[in-house]
Amino acid sequence: MGSAAPTLAELDASYIKVTRSTNLRDVPLPGSPEELSHSHCTDHMVTVRWTASNGWDTPEVKPFANLSIPPTASCLHYATECFEGMKVYRGQDGKLRLFRPDLNGERLDGSSKRASLPGFRFAELKHLIAKLMQIDGPRMNIPYRWLPKDQPGRFLYLRPTVIGNGTQLGVQTPKEALLFIIAVPWPDPSKKKQEEGAPHGLKLLASQPDTIRAWPGGFGYAKLGANYGPSLAAHGRAQALGFDQVLWLFGEDRKVTEAGASNFFIVWDNKETGKRELITAPLDSQLILPGVTRRSVLELARTHFAQPCGKLAPVEVVEREFTIGDIEEAWKEGRIVESFVSGTAFFITPVKLIRNGNVDIDLLTAGAERAGYAAQIKSWLEAIMYGKDGQENHKWGFVIEDEIEN
Amino acid sequence: MGSAAPTLAELDASYIKVTRSTNLRDVPLPGSPEELSHSHCTDHMVTVRWTASNGWDTPEVKPFANLSIPPTASCLHYATECFEGMKVYRGQDGKLRLFRPDLNGERLDGSSKRASLPGFRFAELKHLIAKLMQIDGPRMNIPYRWLPKDQPGRFLYLRPTVIGNGTQLGVQTPKEALLFIIAVPWPDPSKKKQEEGAPHGLKLLASQPDTIRAWPGGFGYAKLGANYGPSLAAHGRAQALGFDQVLWLFGEDRKVTEAGASNFFIVWDNKETGKRELITAPLDSQLILPGVTRRSVLELARTHFAQPCGKLAPVEVVEREFTIGDIEEAWKEGRIVESFVSGTAFFITPVKLIRNGNVDIDLLTAGAERAGYAAQIKSWLEAIMYGKDGQENHKWGFVIEDEIEN
Repeated sequence: MGSAAPTLAELDASYIKVTRSTNLRDVPLPGSPEELSHSHCTDHMVTVRWTASNGWDTPEVKPFANLSIPPTASCLHYATECFEGMKVYRGQDGKLRLFRPDLNGERLDGSSKRASLPGFRFAELKHLIAKLMQIDGPRMNIPYRWLPKDQPGRFLYLRPTVIGNGTQLGVQTPKEALLFIIAVPWPDPSKKKQEEGAPHGLKLLASQPDTIRAWPGGFGYAKLGANYGPSLAAHGRAQALGFDQVLWLFGEDRKVTEAGASNFFIVWDNKETGKRELITAPLDSQLILPGVTRRSVLELARTHFAQPCGKLAPVEVVEREFTIGDIEEAWKEGRIVESFVSGTAFFITPVKLIRNGNVDIDLLTAGAERAGYAAQIKSWLEAIMYGKDGQENHKWGFVIEDEIEN
Repeated sequence: MGSAAPTLAELDASYIKVTRSTNLRDVPLPGSPEELSHSHCTDHMVTVRWTASNGWDTPEVKPFANLSIPPTASCLHYATECFEGMKVYRGQDGKLRLFRPDLNGERLDGSSKRASLPGFRFAELKHLIAKLMQIDGPRMNIPYRWLPKDQPGRFLYLRPTVIGNGTQLGVQTPKEALLFIIAVPWPDPSKKKQEEGAPHGLKLLASQPDTIRAWPGGFGYAKLGANYGPSLAAHGRAQALGFDQVLWLFGEDRKVTEAGASNFFIVWDNKETGKRELITAPLDSQLILPGVTRRSVLELARTHFAQPCGKLAPVEVVEREFTIGDIEEAWKEGRIVESFVSGTAFFITPVKLIRNGNVDIDLLTAGAERAGYAAQIKSWLEAIMYGKDGQENHKWGFVIEDEIEN
């Protein structure tokens, strides 16, 4: 018998163990308080335990329930935690789809390592999610309750999360972790705004120099809990003033980075070149989250906006640093075409206004007559997500097959 | 019946509810694996629930147990969490003491607000801890098991913690929270090092410019979980290289900030003035944790080191920015007298060596013959903590009275 180190088990969704709930939960109605709570999960959840000595355990789908966490767990003290935001879409063709799930898997793997939590074979994540959706899907005499087949356009929000849940009060890298995945009915923010009759779009409050979200050499590029809690105070102050998100600026020149839970874009006419540009902050400074929707926006725009697209003039797509001063100048000079944010929660949402100190930069009025880029991108993305308009087999859509009962 | 907003209840330790454990836990022996786990808690814990609608509930002392936390809890996703590190000391006079507990209470109140968690009347914290220690103390036929009366010099580590435990997946300020306090037998790191026969002192690895702990406008001054998780990777790399802690530098000039879980001090002879100085990083840049031990070190040094103290020459106490380059220069010029860190976990521990890139700054050799300031300060602090050498009634010691059975 040798003394070789044991092989650590990889994350492997093919060995998943299923325990079905015998006590199904109520499905909240769209717009109900339960749905607006953002916290009413589906009947099941995925959990996978990891230990430093054995690696990843067998994944489980089991009834949704509270977690039993030791008061000494490192996730409660040292923020050893990270997550992903994803959605599962009920398509026009009746199929369930994820949108580029491997990009989320890869980012969660990276975030987990950045928080000293375990990495994993990221392509497994989509299979774990697929299993969860299959189990929360149809079974004998019970149709899909959470995303009915006959209700295309509905979606659930998915929250894959990794936490350090070992009993470990000493400051050290976690020796135990838990990957879990929950699914939540989520209100559609764009629908809500439209119903209220308000002009559709977000109001952003530019951050002040005394509050900084991220810093070079920090962790603003990873989806860590540590990026959120400390920024909630500024977010809460912005909301109390009637704003939707903080527009986070950085540095003495007040570079634009991201808008809270979303990436930020402007379409403007470049002052020097006269060219129309779609601009967003670059990734290389590691200050912003590399959004999956952001990346998709840039890829679609580079492909389709190089030439005239319907009534839309060509735009050059640039990832480059720009400042709030640049925005204000362009706005005063009438060079802003439109502005929007992208993200899983907000999808593609226009920006109506940015308040920077005493100046209200009214972007909807500025670009209202020329806008259309964001709407066009949104329409392309929706076609892929919901399997319609000829995009049923687009490579960015990952179809979740119905479970075969056995 | 008016519609006035309900008064939110304050945190009030006088109404504490006690549920005694009927299943007492084993007390780990000093040096045992259980003690070295830093996670084997005492028989009881304190919990206090808070809600945005009602404020603080009645505090409870109850048997130590895992927490039941919803998978959607904000502490698991958004790092809405903060904590304190404290100790309870068994004195030479048989009494239990806390050391300046109101400073910890005040800091936890501040950290909690910085994480968008609730504030509280900070002076209550020491009374909650006192109740926990009384319940884990003697009762009929059972002597103090965790800190025996006849074993002066023993201590427990205390971990007051506030987490956002409400079901709240939306990014917003927490509407529910839990304050809990646990007590843990903790190995005495200074004893361990001495037993190993190694020269007593820490080895610090200076951080590289691509990894920073905190930044201006951030939250490095608050004891948030978010300051720890993201720094564990660098800490783990330092430990793998045989170092105890990272010495965190900041900025292009590489200013010295703090040493992981402790504040950092140097005694040196100032190049310009020729005066001997005790120097540490200032608080006003908000990059470092305002340590209770740090503050006590500075106060004692200002009081006692202004004039010659025994064999020790006078030192001027300064809180001022200084760089790793300044340390290296002083070391090369033989101006370093000694260096040490302070903190609850490390107490007062000499620094043996700092590695900065290719340079090993050997501080123990540099200052070995002249050192003595840290040892003197440590001795004063110990007298207060353990109620000896005439310091039994020092105002910094908070005595926990034995519970009167009723």
